[in-house]
Amino acid sequence: MKQGLAETLERIAAIIEERRGGDTDKSYVARLLARGEDDVLKKIGEEATETVLAAKSGEPLHLVREIADLWFHCMILLARHGLGPGDVLAELHRREGISGLDEKAARKHDSDPRR
Amino acid sequence: MKQGLAETLERIAAIIEERRGGDTDKSYVARLLARGEDDVLKKIGEEATETVLAAKSGEPLHLVREIADLWFHCMILLARHGLGPGDVLAELHRREGISGLDEKAARKHDSDPRR
Amino acid sequence: MKQGLAETLERIAAIIEERRGGDTDKSYVARLLARGEDDVLKKIGEEATETVLAAKSGEPLHLVREIADLWFHCMILLARHGLGPGDVLAELHRREGISGLDEKAARKHDSDPRR
Amino acid sequence: MKQGLAETLERIAAIIEERRGGDTDKSYVARLLARGEDDVLKKIGEEATETVLAAKSGEPLHLVREIADLWFHCMILLARHGLGPGDVLAELHRREGISGLDEKAARKHDSDPRR
Repeated sequence: MKQGLAETLERIAAIIEERRGGDTDKSYVARLLARGEDDVLKKIGEEATETVLAAKSGEPLHLVREIADLWFHCMILLARHGLGPGDVLAELHRREGISGLDEKAARKHDSDPRR
Repeated sequence: MKQGLAETLERIAAIIEERRGGDTDKSYVARLLARGEDDVLKKIGEEATETVLAAKSGEPLHLVREIADLWFHCMILLARHGLGPGDVLAELHRREGISGLDEKAARKHDSDPRR
Repeated sequence: MKQGLAETLERIAAIIEERRGGDTDKSYVARLLARGEDDVLKKIGEEATETVLAAKSGEPLHLVREIADLWFHCMILLARHGLGPGDVLAELHRREGISGLDEKAARKHDSDPRR
Repeated sequence: MKQGLAETLERIAAIIEERRGGDTDKSYVARLLARGEDDVLKKIGEEATETVLAAKSGEPLHLVREIADLWFHCMILLARHGLGPGDVLAELHRREGISGLDEKAARKHDSDPRR
């Protein structure tokens, strides 16, 4: 990964904070944050579906763009809850290592009504 | 963000690569990668819905966990396409700055059938 | 549409009611209704994604099955809220006619943050 | 269910067929059908998320409207594939009876990577 790229999430989170309460005519982020949470959640659902469709399209750039959209809207959602990408990275870091990453599967396992 | 946290995505991506072709009895990642792409895409849809429900629950830790799940499965999807989190960060970096982040809204605008 | 087919939704709704509080070891519906609402909502998200993937597969029978799954889980959700497919049909009936069906688009139009 | 309500799905399907190839300036259905399939699939994803949010809102009328939107867009998708609501009802009819409705759970069971 190129120098400075790893810090991108933090910089984006800072920009999101900056836009909060800003001019809703000029900024998409300000506009979305000024609305109710459900509008952000709808975007999460939309971008997830677009990620699925992008994967099906087989175009790598399309897929990268849609996942960027999805992560970006996740960061807006985190900001609404006083959280940031650092919290997500800390959780992923906690799961690192063979047992850590597969722990999730075990956890989910027990809550599946199809079992 | 704590030292080393920013590199977490890269390390997770490396672990995903390592598990590819591994023992499907032992590793959730190996099992998911051994299946068809649709199974990964179903997980994207599931984790997005769980993110929405976690936001509604109002529990910060729950939200962080679900977004971690969502991003993790996005990284598995990226790996299937020969891509990684660095590509997503590069795209987000490209959009940085006021015009960059709001460019997306403009782009989407034109493809909305409701207009 | 074949004789009696139109009443299928009502009969399914009656079966769902019948299973409520039934043996969770024997019935998927009883098991799902015994859980919290979020489990039903997760299924809505899952089945929607599976409908998208089925459409992409191009297999008509696959698509029909996934939409049947989606509608079936919608009926379980309706049942939880004391509602049934008749309420959905009444709403669709209300929208019938050129203006009625397109009214939805107009309604949605105004709540789109991308505008 | 009121007299005639059961036939609503068939009438809506007929209206969708009628609009196909119609004036895209006047009709939302014509506009959506004139676009690529992915636009219809995005709507399925959106309406599913809105159904989840409506259930969370606890307002029965809101839930009914969102499920009506979801089913309506499923019918547009079916129409694109030369199918109709009768095919979905026939599938649901096939599953009627205790074993039939729970058969789905068994079918899904085998394809879950979390097992």
